[in-house]
Amino acid sequence: MSATTSHGRLSLNQATIKYATLSEALQVAVDAGYRSIGLWREPVQEVGLDRAVDLVADSGLRVSSLCRGGFFTVASGPERDRALDDNRRALEEAHRLGTEILVLVCGGLPAGDRDLVGARERVRDAIGALAGDAADAGVTLALEPLHPMYAADRAVINTLGQALDIAEQFPAEAVGVVVDTFHLWWDPEVIAQIARAGRERITSYQVCDWITPLPADNLLARGVPGDGHIDFGPITAAVAATGYAGDVECEIFNADVWDRPFAEVAALVADRYHALIEPHLP
Amino acid sequence: MSATTSHGRLSLNQATIKYATLSEALQVAVDAGYRSIGLWREPVQEVGLDRAVDLVADSGLRVSSLCRGGFFTVASGPERDRALDDNRRALEEAHRLGTEILVLVCGGLPAGDRDLVGARERVRDAIGALAGDAADAGVTLALEPLHPMYAADRAVINTLGQALDIAEQFPAEAVGVVVDTFHLWWDPEVIAQIARAGRERITSYQVCDWITPLPADNLLARGVPGDGHIDFGPITAAVAATGYAGDVECEIFNADVWDRPFAEVAALVADRYHALIEPHLP
Repeated sequence: MSATTSHGRLSLNQATIKYATLSEALQVAVDAGYRSIGLWREPVQEVGLDRAVDLVADSGLRVSSLCRGGFFTVASGPERDRALDDNRRALEEAHRLGTEILVLVCGGLPAGDRDLVGARERVRDAIGALAGDAADAGVTLALEPLHPMYAADRAVINTLGQALDIAEQFPAEAVGVVVDTFHLWWDPEVIAQIARAGRERITSYQVCDWITPLPADNLLARGVPGDGHIDFGPITAAVAATGYAGDVECEIFNADVWDRPFAEVAALVADRYHALIEPHLP
Repeated sequence: MSATTSHGRLSLNQATIKYATLSEALQVAVDAGYRSIGLWREPVQEVGLDRAVDLVADSGLRVSSLCRGGFFTVASGPERDRALDDNRRALEEAHRLGTEILVLVCGGLPAGDRDLVGARERVRDAIGALAGDAADAGVTLALEPLHPMYAADRAVINTLGQALDIAEQFPAEAVGVVVDTFHLWWDPEVIAQIARAGRERITSYQVCDWITPLPADNLLARGVPGDGHIDFGPITAAVAATGYAGDVECEIFNADVWDRPFAEVAALVADRYHALIEPHLP
């Protein structure tokens, strides 16, 4: 691969090569022929936002999304205020980095709290508190439903339908949803809910595979497309049918993938994209 | 506890004390004051069906359910025929053991198969092939939706709504559903789907908790009620509101629980039932 190659709409999420610094990740993506990259706040903050903005500009890459805001399921009080403030900073970071998408992982049940319905209502309220800031920043809050196995400890929003029930209460430029195959592939309603979301609400399309057996750490259960059980055709075709014309981001949390050379992973992801996903795009 | 104690509608599923033989499990349940027990086919087959029937009769316990049939997601052919025959034997075993409930775990994606929609259709077809046998045996096929994290490798039916979509195609005496808190607690539709199921379709109500972090083996992720994140009140109240008057079975797959003395586990489960579940029953 050379820098003149393009992988179409594929974007490499930085978490797929987790141990790369921001500089390294940008170079890996450029060398492997990507035109865009999904960034995470922690490696950006490691170099500082100003420097990160410069590095991105020098790379020539477009930033497809910034990950992540959210974690705002706690009840009113100082902890919730801090969470909302942190989300406002994340919106500003996204804006400065040149992406219009801030991905939100909403957070699980607060410690000792078993009121799942209440936690879900607080997600809606937090989105409501941030929607105006998002519109002001020109950044869309991309609410990501996470797989139900994370309902207790990572995200109380677990289906695309739930995410849309919240997003639809706000203007589409302020609040959208992430369609991530890993989180949603099992849902018997996923195709219908993708159609419901439409081009207007699908803010990001992300691809990675469901592998078995699940690794001991279920946060690292994601596979490179083609290594697992997901049929990428129907979901990709449903997303494409809405008219969604945005990036296809590949974000993989997997200890084995992280241990491989960055360039090898970037090339493998691109190969799988061309084989399994791109044929289902217009 | 003495044999004269009763734990009301609580039934001890044998899998909660997995390392007990059938004889031991029956004695543990009697000694701990249970009046019913949920059995598994493997320990029954270890002693043979005739002997198992005698042991149950001698114990004075009622069998609340037999676990499990299912595993019929393969396409037409000898393997599917064998699976259906095995389910017919399971129906006969349930009948002989005096229970009207055969719990079904429908099976995951066949090896190398990514067609989740097709596998789900084959579950419906298999239920259709067995419904007559179930009615003849006087046993209800209790379709159990399993948590979405098992969609690939254990069960392609993952929500109560999906299970009901299938069950409702058949007479209620032949096909019902299992409401298991562990599998369904995260589902934003669970209360509405319990109401939809109604007394007619809820064949079994099972309780166990969702614990975090998930153990390395996700099949053993279940906790004793009270040890995890589930609020048993709303789900139990919703089941009770349908008029469901059957057993409340406690089935826990958990390596730590299995390593504890059987009698201690049986007593703990009963304590938690009285504290967390019984108050929400009429």
